[in-house]
Amino acid sequence: MKLLTFKYKNEEKIGVLSEGGSSVKTIEGFRDMNDFIDKGGKAEVFGEEIPFGEIQLLAPIPFPKQDAICLGINYMAHAEESARYKKEAFGGERPYPVYFSKRVDEAVGSGMPIPSHRDVTDTLDYEVELAVIIGKTARNVPEGKALDYIFGYTIINDVSARNLQTRHQQWYFGKSLDGALPMGPVIVTADEIAYPPELNIKSYVNGELRQNSNTRNMIASVEQVIVELSSGMTLKPGTVIAMGTPAGVGMGFQPPKFLKSGDVVECEIEGIGVLKNRVE
Amino acid sequence: MKLLTFKYKNEEKIGVLSEGGSSVKTIEGFRDMNDFIDKGGKAEVFGEEIPFGEIQLLAPIPFPKQDAICLGINYMAHAEESARYKKEAFGGERPYPVYFSKRVDEAVGSGMPIPSHRDVTDTLDYEVELAVIIGKTARNVPEGKALDYIFGYTIINDVSARNLQTRHQQWYFGKSLDGALPMGPVIVTADEIAYPPELNIKSYVNGELRQNSNTRNMIASVEQVIVELSSGMTLKPGTVIAMGTPAGVGMGFQPPKFLKSGDVVECEIEGIGVLKNRVE
Repeated sequence: MKLLTFKYKNEEKIGVLSEGGSSVKTIEGFRDMNDFIDKGGKAEVFGEEIPFGEIQLLAPIPFPKQDAICLGINYMAHAEESARYKKEAFGGERPYPVYFSKRVDEAVGSGMPIPSHRDVTDTLDYEVELAVIIGKTARNVPEGKALDYIFGYTIINDVSARNLQTRHQQWYFGKSLDGALPMGPVIVTADEIAYPPELNIKSYVNGELRQNSNTRNMIASVEQVIVELSSGMTLKPGTVIAMGTPAGVGMGFQPPKFLKSGDVVECEIEGIGVLKNRVE
Repeated sequence: MKLLTFKYKNEEKIGVLSEGGSSVKTIEGFRDMNDFIDKGGKAEVFGEEIPFGEIQLLAPIPFPKQDAICLGINYMAHAEESARYKKEAFGGERPYPVYFSKRVDEAVGSGMPIPSHRDVTDTLDYEVELAVIIGKTARNVPEGKALDYIFGYTIINDVSARNLQTRHQQWYFGKSLDGALPMGPVIVTADEIAYPPELNIKSYVNGELRQNSNTRNMIASVEQVIVELSSGMTLKPGTVIAMGTPAGVGMGFQPPKFLKSGDVVECEIEGIGVLKNRVE
């Protein structure tokens, strides 16, 4: 299933995208996507069928229950470009995954604007990432069992204010500005994506290809991350784990190509879709 | 007012501590402390008066709506002891505050156990911190207006697994294990603490004084932090901002004095009280 959250006639609904993507069938009986995932994620009662052109997409999970968990530097080529940009912030050995979090007030749906935050940053950057959505409470998940805990996958754009990210040493503030978590367009349930995911992952800015890799190039796997994090930190249903970005972000270019007002960022992952946002 | 959340006859309630601390009067009309703060934080309708000895304390905000925001290295003497412990993780120049977040599933009340997480850490540490609770939505707060946004103050113990904190480069995972956010015993409303807070702040392990400073020694002030964070990141009512810890944490000793099962940690701040927890 491709699941989505959307507005239709001023009401927020959740639904399933039709095979060709031309329409959406509403799923009834749940408060929102969090509630749907909490209750097992089975769509059984459907409501009306609405042409896709008549809905306004929201993030599949507009209000994640906790901050999103993110991996830093999880593709080798991105590690190299990051160290080139600022050695003291991104260089050094990294034998273990780098985890940080991204505060999220309200996640931004495909088609919604990304605030430019011109007052506080002149180095706004994009990062396309595969995100995993946890389906059931994960605690001390053993090796080999992690797949049972994956509800599905979506795309996030890990929008980053590089000046704040590096200035404050820890990345949290620079990753957590309002509107810095575009997510979507849909959640694809885990049964539709073979594990491990080997999906082309790309981003474009104003139509120019910037990032172009495949999720098979991730250093830490989804399984490894679920096993490691759940060894001490309970992951609740609906938890968003963003798996890091490949090379080609703005700070990786010489000179850097940061985002400016009016830029259109498209984040694309094979089998999931395109998350498209304009910088305000 | 000294506000608290507690269990009485198996029901969760919020209330106000009496002058001498011998009893608690319930506050009626709110779902929980988050709801109380959201709705302006005025206690108007009181219920029964209960002897303090008959309640079970919970964290004043058992389920914060978002991860807690924390400052790293916000007392100079703690900066020195941290760099001594592990230079690559804590050394270097820090002209700006260090912000990170602490995932919180359920905050731990005074008297409740701290899990030892022996499977994943042998370097569990304590950190007493003054925490600020935001009272109303803060966005682009100008200099000089920050005090209007402070609902009150509490104590947190920023329990840290040093091996995970340093191994994963970013501090998030090592700060976010289940049960790593003891909070309490109460929230003291901002009207009862003169600004800037100049409060003695101490911690004890098994009765041995470990940390002993005053919140006037904080490098970044509460005002500065609210102004800076709200310049790009909306702070909602109920947001917890922990202001960093003074010198004397376990990793600061030579050899280090990490926590072990059975240890009792007391975190004390003048005018707020004592947050006391035993390591499981």
